[in-house]
Amino acid sequence: MTIKNDKHKFLNPNLNTLEPYVPGKQINDSEYLKLNTNENPFGPSPCVKETIVKFLENSEALLRLYPESESDSLREVIAKKFATKSDQIFVGNGSDEVLSLCFLAFFAGRGCLSFPELTYSFYPSIAKLFKIPFSTFQLKKDFSLDLTSITPDSKSVIFPNPNAITGIALSIDVIDRFVKENPDKLIIIDEAYADFSKDSCVYLINNYPNILIVQTFSKSRGMAGLRVGFCFGSKPLIDGLKAVKNSFNSYPVDTLATLAAISATKDDLWFENNIATIVKTRSYFTQELEKIGFRVLPSSANFVLITHPRLKADTLRDHLFKNKILVRHFPETRVSNWLRITIGKREDCDVLLSVLKQKISGAN
Amino acid sequence: MTIKNDKHKFLNPNLNTLEPYVPGKQINDSEYLKLNTNENPFGPSPCVKETIVKFLENSEALLRLYPESESDSLREVIAKKFATKSDQIFVGNGSDEVLSLCFLAFFAGRGCLSFPELTYSFYPSIAKLFKIPFSTFQLKKDFSLDLTSITPDSKSVIFPNPNAITGIALSIDVIDRFVKENPDKLIIIDEAYADFSKDSCVYLINNYPNILIVQTFSKSRGMAGLRVGFCFGSKPLIDGLKAVKNSFNSYPVDTLATLAAISATKDDLWFENNIATIVKTRSYFTQELEKIGFRVLPSSANFVLITHPRLKADTLRDHLFKNKILVRHFPETRVSNWLRITIGKREDCDVLLSVLKQKISGAN
Repeated sequence: MTIKNDKHKFLNPNLNTLEPYVPGKQINDSEYLKLNTNENPFGPSPCVKETIVKFLENSEALLRLYPESESDSLREVIAKKFATKSDQIFVGNGSDEVLSLCFLAFFAGRGCLSFPELTYSFYPSIAKLFKIPFSTFQLKKDFSLDLTSITPDSKSVIFPNPNAITGIALSIDVIDRFVKENPDKLIIIDEAYADFSKDSCVYLINNYPNILIVQTFSKSRGMAGLRVGFCFGSKPLIDGLKAVKNSFNSYPVDTLATLAAISATKDDLWFENNIATIVKTRSYFTQELEKIGFRVLPSSANFVLITHPRLKADTLRDHLFKNKILVRHFPETRVSNWLRITIGKREDCDVLLSVLKQKISGAN
Repeated sequence: MTIKNDKHKFLNPNLNTLEPYVPGKQINDSEYLKLNTNENPFGPSPCVKETIVKFLENSEALLRLYPESESDSLREVIAKKFATKSDQIFVGNGSDEVLSLCFLAFFAGRGCLSFPELTYSFYPSIAKLFKIPFSTFQLKKDFSLDLTSITPDSKSVIFPNPNAITGIALSIDVIDRFVKENPDKLIIIDEAYADFSKDSCVYLINNYPNILIVQTFSKSRGMAGLRVGFCFGSKPLIDGLKAVKNSFNSYPVDTLATLAAISATKDDLWFENNIATIVKTRSYFTQELEKIGFRVLPSSANFVLITHPRLKADTLRDHLFKNKILVRHFPETRVSNWLRITIGKREDCDVLLSVLKQKISGAN
């Protein structure tokens, strides 16, 4: 969607080329198997529910008060968990808000931004909103990121690790070297899916003043419905982000979401089991897909990107949709003949595999 | 707080004069009587708690899914309540986020913005964030707004009705005429406190394409902790706002907050009783304050602005704080010798009155 300036005269003329992000379909119909937006099939720790119910039973009246402006209590719990200081942490209304505030605070007004040609398609939307010039850098033939192809002119860089869409991760060593060798670039690593790879750059914030790491409660913590994201960085970066946030919205994270996030962070056992199950299911699903002829990129995330030598991605997507299974297709990209499928429960994968098998045998 | 550009080299240089909004103190200590940020003393309808608990008991797993991107179900309930169409409504993460997105969508890049010299101090913070030039217009001697003093050059206008800090409302007739006579200005009426005056401009959106009305669940609906705000306007304005929001954060309103807001909107009886009680307490509190020598501005909101002929506002604020009562003082403004006090429960007002009486008799 492009907003035309002539649509009405009151719109900010800087926004007449806006291309808002289009998220994956949210079909509110439990008959559909939803494997299109990388949600966690198991949801949050049961402690989350218990904590909220307990709060509502004993302190419901506190809903009337504004939440903590800086999410102090949640930042403390996250700091303890990640062995950082709480003033190295910023919390926002989902990692999308954290990303947008970072773009405004650190990318806007500072020259060209670089991100991968194939990545989270929300980045160009935010960049256009804040008039940030950007260029994309190529992937290698195996779809992994090639940081050497980033233009030296760029003042800032963002990429997800593992990368969105592909699921392929870079090693922390490669990122460490890149951050070290580019002290004048502000570099953001979007670790939305990092818990599924067990590799994180968070500790690098103590070594470099030019790196920010963004994470979320929506994927590995299973609470996309409650909108909590966070990031790590040096205190000056976090202070800058706080100032921007306090000029935009003083209280972005609500009381129940804060309680939920604290509770989810504390339940390590649920978290570890959840991740282990998804990683195991990912291996199983990958093997089964390969058995029926799919090429599957090596994923370190909670999704796989797949393609079939004979069946077109859009045909498969439509066939799955007819069978009430939602997956994600990116027709405008170089992976237009691939599908991205979220790792669900093992039984979800089996349902999907049987529908695919049926289609493939029909095509033989 | 002003962020100096030399603080670190990665901050957007456009933001080096940022002056983030400073909200009233949030002291997380129930020993304090909190009458400083205009929260509702009664909290939300009990249905809100019941709805959330019921959801968590039956559909807790849905926390794992992203919420509705456009808050469709909440917009439908609001539309029914206000007799508008749901495509004339936008919902965001508190009315502060709605305001910020409106500033970016309709004020930025369009010339000078006007707002009252004495008003919600968040407006200049947002304006500075998005580099929007602004000028302020004077109040009359009685502290009411003087729309005739708005510079003809301004391309957009925002003011709260009733006005923040003072609590004084303009009549809808005056606003209607102003909007009609200024078809080239985009005009936003911030109705955060309008439910306490029983007068609203919402129906004007059907008459004029140049007006937006912002409301909130934080005050009259008693759920500041859950962060839901909304606005009304013509479909083209709402479409513009949606496009901006979808370039910033696709899912700003979480699942539990949405359920809570739907539930609060449906409980008319609780709402009417709540408002009636606060309005009655406001009259009582005003009379009692006048009896002990205070001047009280005529408020149509859930707070009063007061001054005493002999006792300085900062002295009174400090005395109240020592007695564990929080009120709001605006030292940098022309009401630096006034205090703004939220209307609490009748017993809250009595506690505050007795502390004030004590101080006044001591000063005699």
